Amino acid sequence: MADAAFVAVDWGTSSFRLWLMSKSGEILGERRSGEGMTTAMRTGFPDVLASHLSALSAPSDLPVVVCGMAGARQGWVEAGYVDVPADLADVLKGAVRVPGEAADIRILPGLAQRSQDTPDVMRGEETQLLGALSADYATGEQLVCMPGTHSKWVSVSNLKVTGFSTYMTGELFDVISKHSILSHAVEGAETVAGDLPAFQGAVAESYENPQMATNRLFTVRSGQLLHGLSATDAKAKLSGTMIGLEIAGARSSGRNDAKVILVASGALGELYKAAFAALSIDFVTIDADDAVRRGLVAAANAIWQ
Amino acid sequence: MADAAFVAVDWGTSSFRLWLMSKSGEILGERRSGEGMTTAMRTGFPDVLASHLSALSAPSDLPVVVCGMAGARQGWVEAGYVDVPADLADVLKGAVRVPGEAADIRILPGLAQRSQDTPDVMRGEETQLLGALSADYATGEQLVCMPGTHSKWVSVSNLKVTGFSTYMTGELFDVISKHSILSHAVEGAETVAGDLPAFQGAVAESYENPQMATNRLFTVRSGQLLHGLSATDAKAKLSGTMIGLEIAGARSSGRNDAKVILVASGALGELYKAAFAALSIDFVTIDADDAVRRGLVAAANAIWQ
Repeated sequence: MADAAFVAVDWGTSSFRLWLMSKSGEILGERRSGEGMTTAMRTGFPDVLASHLSALSAPSDLPVVVCGMAGARQGWVEAGYVDVPADLADVLKGAVRVPGEAADIRILPGLAQRSQDTPDVMRGEETQLLGALSADYATGEQLVCMPGTHSKWVSVSNLKVTGFSTYMTGELFDVISKHSILSHAVEGAETVAGDLPAFQGAVAESYENPQMATNRLFTVRSGQLLHGLSATDAKAKLSGTMIGLEIAGARSSGRNDAKVILVASGALGELYKAAFAALSIDFVTIDADDAVRRGLVAAANAIWQ
Repeated sequence: MADAAFVAVDWGTSSFRLWLMSKSGEILGERRSGEGMTTAMRTGFPDVLASHLSALSAPSDLPVVVCGMAGARQGWVEAGYVDVPADLADVLKGAVRVPGEAADIRILPGLAQRSQDTPDVMRGEETQLLGALSADYATGEQLVCMPGTHSKWVSVSNLKVTGFSTYMTGELFDVISKHSILSHAVEGAETVAGDLPAFQGAVAESYENPQMATNRLFTVRSGQLLHGLSATDAKAKLSGTMIGLEIAGARSSGRNDAKVILVASGALGELYKAAFAALSIDFVTIDADDAVRRGLVAAANAIWQ
């Protein structure tokens, strides 16, 4: 571990990811846990960080660069927002140092869109964008889809964020699955697979008729009552309805001549790929985990080198 | 109480309403409680009914006509569905007698729409419809809006239900208010008033751009963060977004030349009146409580007289 140079942390609402990095950008160690902001607010941000550094036998005085909800008002130290339109590089200048710590710990700001009609905020995705776009998409127009609890669709022009919209897709899927009458219909369902006809059909139907979304959700229940809709198909239909609604919104408000870039990982990434395919939307994919790490490395390089 | 002739009960998922009626249709007594199906499944349907009859000093052997979720599979006795298209009067023929009870207790069936794409069900609203329309709207085309936990929009032609759609508006408002990130934004809010600009603006915006609904919901949160949106305005915006989305769906799928009839009571009725006014939609209102009682009386007359 002699050549560890700095620590990169993506500290979300419910997840914590840490990479121990060499000066040349090599990954020397990696940690993932559920100790996101919600947990760390109770147990203490310094202790969470220290425990993961200790688990990697890393020195406790390494410089640390952090993005995400650790910079929220209710996080570790408030890191504010850079207002859009904003060059992604401007985010790097706004890092806030955590006071009272021996180590040099910097938290990156988020982005804010302060319009009266469509106010919006992001924290963490700006760093992902930096990592995702700098290498291959430094010029041109992109519409970047970053799915998740609160999916972000970001319009980018020559590495400048011109506007963005958040859709509560993941969170609504979660609360509807758990707390509404549909909880009975999806009980015991398998994980939603993008190749299920029930998923693809719901994506297409919701995209074509977004105004019917809360009715289509009810048909998950009535489909179970009248047609014996299976739990797995019920969950796929719920998921597809929410994702189709999101894409309908994003495509109606973004520039349709912009290249669609999906920044996602794992199972959620596979669902969005299947949704785009069902809607015949051309896109390219960039791995979200790689992107945020690359963005944090770029931030570290800008701050300390 | 000498002239009590029968008992009318509207037994919903979460509410119980009972009227003690004379032969001529006079209300001799009335009870309301939260002992809907969810409660009665645990405490027993016969006991709930007996306790309310006892509270009115009514004989325990009066005939009883019941509509609503008491006739669901998980209710008291399953009363099945009449399939649409259906004359409302057909509902009266499908009443199921509760076995093993000394009193003559009949539960009315619901309506089912068995299409593969838009399956739908109602229980209780068919009785409200019967009461709402028979007197003044026995002919012509109506689009009937019945707001609630699961709002129903029903197409009726000469007292025949030709189709209907359920929107999960009320339940989604409730679970989003309680279980999503918006719970912080609406904490401490006053009851939503229809004359609030935040409500009317959200109704209009969601009606015009239904595809943006889950984004507009997030602006409740970001509006609080960036513009200090008040809890009352936040709740009004959440409510208006959900109601505007429902109306957009209903108007896109119903016949737009049909007369819009709002069957509603109380605060929820006032919100829908304000929403229709904000969208310049012509409508007439029929009181929902009166309607269901009149429908139950019509059923009692058909069954026992």
